[in-house]
Amino acid sequence: MSVLAVGTVAFDSIETPFGSVDRILGGSATYITIAARYFCDDVRLVGVVGDDFPQDYMDVLRNSGVDLEGLEIDRNGRTFFWAGRYHYNMNDRETLATHLNVLETFTPKIPDRYRDSRIVCLGNLDPTIQLGVLDQISNPEIVICDTMNFWIDNTPEQLYNTLKRIDCLIVNDAEARQLAGVPNLVAAARVIREMGPRTLIIKKGEHGAILFTEGTIFVAPAFPLEVINDPTGAGDTFAGGFAGYLAREERIDTDSLKRAVVYGSAMASFSVERFGPERLLDLTHEEIEQRIEVFHELSRIPALKLTTGAFPAVQ
Amino acid sequence: MSVLAVGTVAFDSIETPFGSVDRILGGSATYITIAARYFCDDVRLVGVVGDDFPQDYMDVLRNSGVDLEGLEIDRNGRTFFWAGRYHYNMNDRETLATHLNVLETFTPKIPDRYRDSRIVCLGNLDPTIQLGVLDQISNPEIVICDTMNFWIDNTPEQLYNTLKRIDCLIVNDAEARQLAGVPNLVAAARVIREMGPRTLIIKKGEHGAILFTEGTIFVAPAFPLEVINDPTGAGDTFAGGFAGYLAREERIDTDSLKRAVVYGSAMASFSVERFGPERLLDLTHEEIEQRIEVFHELSRIPALKLTTGAFPAVQ
Repeated sequence: MSVLAVGTVAFDSIETPFGSVDRILGGSATYITIAARYFCDDVRLVGVVGDDFPQDYMDVLRNSGVDLEGLEIDRNGRTFFWAGRYHYNMNDRETLATHLNVLETFTPKIPDRYRDSRIVCLGNLDPTIQLGVLDQISNPEIVICDTMNFWIDNTPEQLYNTLKRIDCLIVNDAEARQLAGVPNLVAAARVIREMGPRTLIIKKGEHGAILFTEGTIFVAPAFPLEVINDPTGAGDTFAGGFAGYLAREERIDTDSLKRAVVYGSAMASFSVERFGPERLLDLTHEEIEQRIEVFHELSRIPALKLTTGAFPAVQ
Repeated sequence: MSVLAVGTVAFDSIETPFGSVDRILGGSATYITIAARYFCDDVRLVGVVGDDFPQDYMDVLRNSGVDLEGLEIDRNGRTFFWAGRYHYNMNDRETLATHLNVLETFTPKIPDRYRDSRIVCLGNLDPTIQLGVLDQISNPEIVICDTMNFWIDNTPEQLYNTLKRIDCLIVNDAEARQLAGVPNLVAAARVIREMGPRTLIIKKGEHGAILFTEGTIFVAPAFPLEVINDPTGAGDTFAGGFAGYLAREERIDTDSLKRAVVYGSAMASFSVERFGPERLLDLTHEEIEQRIEVFHELSRIPALKLTTGAFPAVQ
């Protein structure tokens, strides 16, 4: 199956307690496609960069095997730039700068060759733009969508329209509570699924992720890491691993969705080990499978072998 | 195996968005023993109440099959009283009143018949008092201990001494971060285990619980509940289910500890369904086992049946 990612390709400047980097390759479409490429050989990118986007970064994407026909180069502008700082607890981040640049006028044009994409991943963008993408795709198997508090706050009606057209929403726990307007995550999941997406994934950082789909809840642990060097892109890497894994299995059902959540979590756990997408550039399939095995160990409830008989009587 | 719980027996007045109750039966020893009693027929309680403790509440404990020889009745004082309020998000609680009353001068005396207790559960008490209990027990199989931010703040040295003598510490995530002095829970677990307890359980409320023991991490999900009527006693109920389950299996190893975490989580998920310990008074073993099965379903990663071949080549 083919995977199409529509999102940002960006320069990121990042400060964390463990270091800082300046204008490194970033953006949702970057993380999604590089992660997905480990599982699927037909990964397509739609996004835009400016005339300042260096050949080196283009080569990173190309060498990862990402199809770049849909990456527009806007010669009249500069590449989207984001700068942020993470504090010691790594939970909240502070945005230091956001320069939309070429993103300001970006309207994704899906190349003809991409219109048959089976798995569509909509990175966090204006929900109206996300809808515009869906109008250019014919009959995808699954549409996976990210969003954020900015769109929930500022363009809720447009977001509701988009939610009606997607199959799977991926948000973090704060976004889920905000979108549903209730603090309980299980209740929030019910409310959000009633808005449209039959599948919802709530990412909870160090607390793992929860999948809600038809009649099923699945809880995936987070990979236990003592040091998280840079959380940037972890959510997009999750989405890329999730989408890529579904493409690899070539079927979408409750069981493959559960496995895809574990693969997405594994990819995200690699991503945060180094700054930017660096760790995603030299992974081996062996390393990925070893980490998947750890996820199995983390969550496996050992089979019960009772040495005693029945429960004691009460009263 | 026998289970001994040392802790409080209290009057609780509780307000939540779903209702309020006044001076109902509460206290750590109450929740621990009632929960443990579902799995073990020899559950012993050490605690103190005042002359105002009603026969009805005594009967609740007695009818649950709890051994009350160690429950002291202090005719010169009143029963420990706690009042608290939970807000809409149910995460933080506000203490409205704490009247120590008979607890102020309480020094637990372990009845001779209890000195051979195999599983010892130290509810949240002054760590010096907890140590005093251990001096009266001969060679227990496992000592399980709860504590809270008050003791971490005010009597850290005494707490460190207690930690050296226990096998298993149960704390929530905020307490773990505070005790270890690091925000990352995996790092915090390593620091705390170096303080003494070979096993650490971090309770994370709606995010489940993590078990850290020799070379092993196990992540248990929380039972998905849309409505939590009253979180009071959930942590103690967890400890009681955990301890009782270990007693039932009659062996303590990595696998039984993992299963015990799941049973503790299941018991806690029942407890919060109604105010106070009410829901714990009429459970059936069938209901418990049905909930355990849900925990298996929540965390089971389905076996992989690949329909495609190898991973795609990258580069």
